[in-house]
Amino acid sequence: LQSKLPNVGTTIFSTMSQLALQHGAINLSQGFPDFDCPPELVDLVTEAMRTGLNQYAPSPGLLSLRQKISEKTQLLYGHTAQPETEITVTSGATEALFAAIAAVVQPGDEVVVLEPCYDSYVPAIELSGGIPVFVPLRFPDFSVDWQQVEEKLTPKTRLLIINSPHNPSGAVWQQSDLDALTRLTQKHPFLILSDEVYEHMVFDGQPHCSVLTVPELAQRAFVVSSFGKTYHTTGWKVGYCIAPALLTHEFRKVHQYLTFSTATPLQHAIAAYLDHQEHYLTLALFYQQKRDLFASLLASSKFELLPCAGTYFQLARYAQISDLSDVDISQWLTKEAGVAVIPVSVFNHDGLDQQVIRFCFAKKEETLRAAAERLCKL
Amino acid sequence: LQSKLPNVGTTIFSTMSQLALQHGAINLSQGFPDFDCPPELVDLVTEAMRTGLNQYAPSPGLLSLRQKISEKTQLLYGHTAQPETEITVTSGATEALFAAIAAVVQPGDEVVVLEPCYDSYVPAIELSGGIPVFVPLRFPDFSVDWQQVEEKLTPKTRLLIINSPHNPSGAVWQQSDLDALTRLTQKHPFLILSDEVYEHMVFDGQPHCSVLTVPELAQRAFVVSSFGKTYHTTGWKVGYCIAPALLTHEFRKVHQYLTFSTATPLQHAIAAYLDHQEHYLTLALFYQQKRDLFASLLASSKFELLPCAGTYFQLARYAQISDLSDVDISQWLTKEAGVAVIPVSVFNHDGLDQQVIRFCFAKKEETLRAAAERLCKL
Ligand SMILES: CSCCC(=O)C(=O)O
Ligand SMILES: CSCCC(=O)C(=O)O
Repeated sequence: LQSKLPNVGTTIFSTMSQLALQHGAINLSQGFPDFDCPPELVDLVTEAMRTGLNQYAPSPGLLSLRQKISEKTQLLYGHTAQPETEITVTSGATEALFAAIAAVVQPGDEVVVLEPCYDSYVPAIELSGGIPVFVPLRFPDFSVDWQQVEEKLTPKTRLLIINSPHNPSGAVWQQSDLDALTRLTQKHPFLILSDEVYEHMVFDGQPHCSVLTVPELAQRAFVVSSFGKTYHTTGWKVGYCIAPALLTHEFRKVHQYLTFSTATPLQHAIAAYLDHQEHYLTLALFYQQKRDLFASLLASSKFELLPCAGTYFQLARYAQISDLSDVDISQWLTKEAGVAVIPVSVFNHDGLDQQVIRFCFAKKEETLRAAAERLCKL
Repeated sequence: LQSKLPNVGTTIFSTMSQLALQHGAINLSQGFPDFDCPPELVDLVTEAMRTGLNQYAPSPGLLSLRQKISEKTQLLYGHTAQPETEITVTSGATEALFAAIAAVVQPGDEVVVLEPCYDSYVPAIELSGGIPVFVPLRFPDFSVDWQQVEEKLTPKTRLLIINSPHNPSGAVWQQSDLDALTRLTQKHPFLILSDEVYEHMVFDGQPHCSVLTVPELAQRAFVVSSFGKTYHTTGWKVGYCIAPALLTHEFRKVHQYLTFSTATPLQHAIAAYLDHQEHYLTLALFYQQKRDLFASLLASSKFELLPCAGTYFQLARYAQISDLSDVDISQWLTKEAGVAVIPVSVFNHDGLDQQVIRFCFAKKEETLRAAAERLCKL
């Protein structure tokens, strides 16, 4: 049996979470909260199930949920997305990313990817026969070098994948990035896949620079988001994709054969809960406080924290502690120091190691304190 | 934009369910129950959510659920599937089918498909660059012509997709089919993808002839099943795939980038509920009674029912009522007679029309009575 994905192993998230479990380490590796989702959301799921809403949802998602997504998108980004033809609910953002790539990438097509990047992009491109073309983000601020992006565009470039707020770095785009991208689209006919799952986690009063705020970008973009990140329900696996009708048409063809539809009672609950605008409007401040707490707790440690402008991830250099590779230090921290983290090099296709690790701070205060105590001893 | 799936439209299930809704027709088209799942199962989901089990499940599925699946598989088919390496929980059987195909079908590989067949197989093959090779099932008993299957095998045959109990026909395999398949595998090195989602709906005291009962087949097969079908929760989208470790290894690579994992609280609930063996052990009789009721209600109609040995689908000829195509009569029945059905020709790649329609009888007695009343008037 010849592997279709010979270079792929188990994702780093599974590997580190399992290692954390094995060694009883505090798990700051895989990105998920260790606190509860809103209890009302749970009640809404129960209500839906008890009302008998347990059969297939429509393949594009419940219309009520798509309508609420449309309202939120209008409110936040001034973009009108038609629920009937431009919004699709998916089984997590991961499915949305895969479906978008599978829908438009033909064998031999080039897909520009900014590195480090989330680990599902490249395998999805490869399964479609596409060719990933890598552009490194600048180090250590993880900003986009638009000059370099432009140099990589060819007539074969089908898709550019972007991600702000950026996982794993926590960097966020500025308006100038949207402007630079808009200029490129005026010269080149590529499509855009914008991973915006951390849209509600941009800190320090900055806005989230969604591609949906720029009509010239929105008209050629798949924009992916995730309720798991927003409602502390990463395990529910409900995400969505907004794209113009023509792109959505192709996207849904793939989606209907990938998963067909997404858990009905969860969709009902989220549709109802989306009325609580205060939840997502206060999320940035909620996570900003966690970022600041974690940073203050690590102030006396030997870790050097990089700037974190969004997401629930904090990067850190560990040069004062060790000269191990980031993969080895992550193993060591998990096994010996009792704190599981993610090495950033696994997000680079060539394993480029800049000796930086990623902490997830989507954790209860007590978890962050306990982890920091261990980390400050090093 | 050049479509990756130029021949694909909206699935017939979405189309007919929507048409049913529009015209207030009784919906016997898309396959799903109109009655509730066990209330205890709902309570178990609520309990899991309230216990805070709302974050990512492990990508292969909760170990507790995989263990229960392993126990059931041992009990029913005498096959030992290792939870750690041979069982993967998926976001519905649809995802499992897609992942299995994406995991092993390379561009140019041939995949033998028995027609009529479920509508996701061929698009999944095409998205992997595979070439579907069609073998018609015999009409009207939908048995496999093994001679013809053998004639279609070439050195390029990577995969054979089989499905018993068979959707849309309700035909089920005999031991002789397993024997014939086993003989073929001794001569040809293809893999098997066995869609067994209706495993608990084989009627008249017959056993379900799972490929898992034959070690020579199990060692080269992906076997896919669905909790949605078994627990009346088609909208929860929880399925699974059993395959030998080597195949599962490749399957999971794809799965982790397709959806990563499946709704955690639903997995917990199903794991706990699987202890109720009586549920799945009585399911065949439960649906057999519905089959018999529906048949007796239609006895005075002009529909000629074909034999139904499994699944929750009943095929019928309508020649005494109309000489419309099956697509047209399905539209007409929905709009004019108030009963939505599925035309069987859409499950043939060339649209071959044998003037047969499919009813779903996974419905409350009152629904079946109301539908039959309308159908008997024709
Ligand atoms: C799907 S598990 C990975 C979660 C995540 O987004 C991350 O940790 O980066
Ligand atoms: C995923 S919707 C289709 C349900 C089904 O299996 C059928 O009706 O055949």
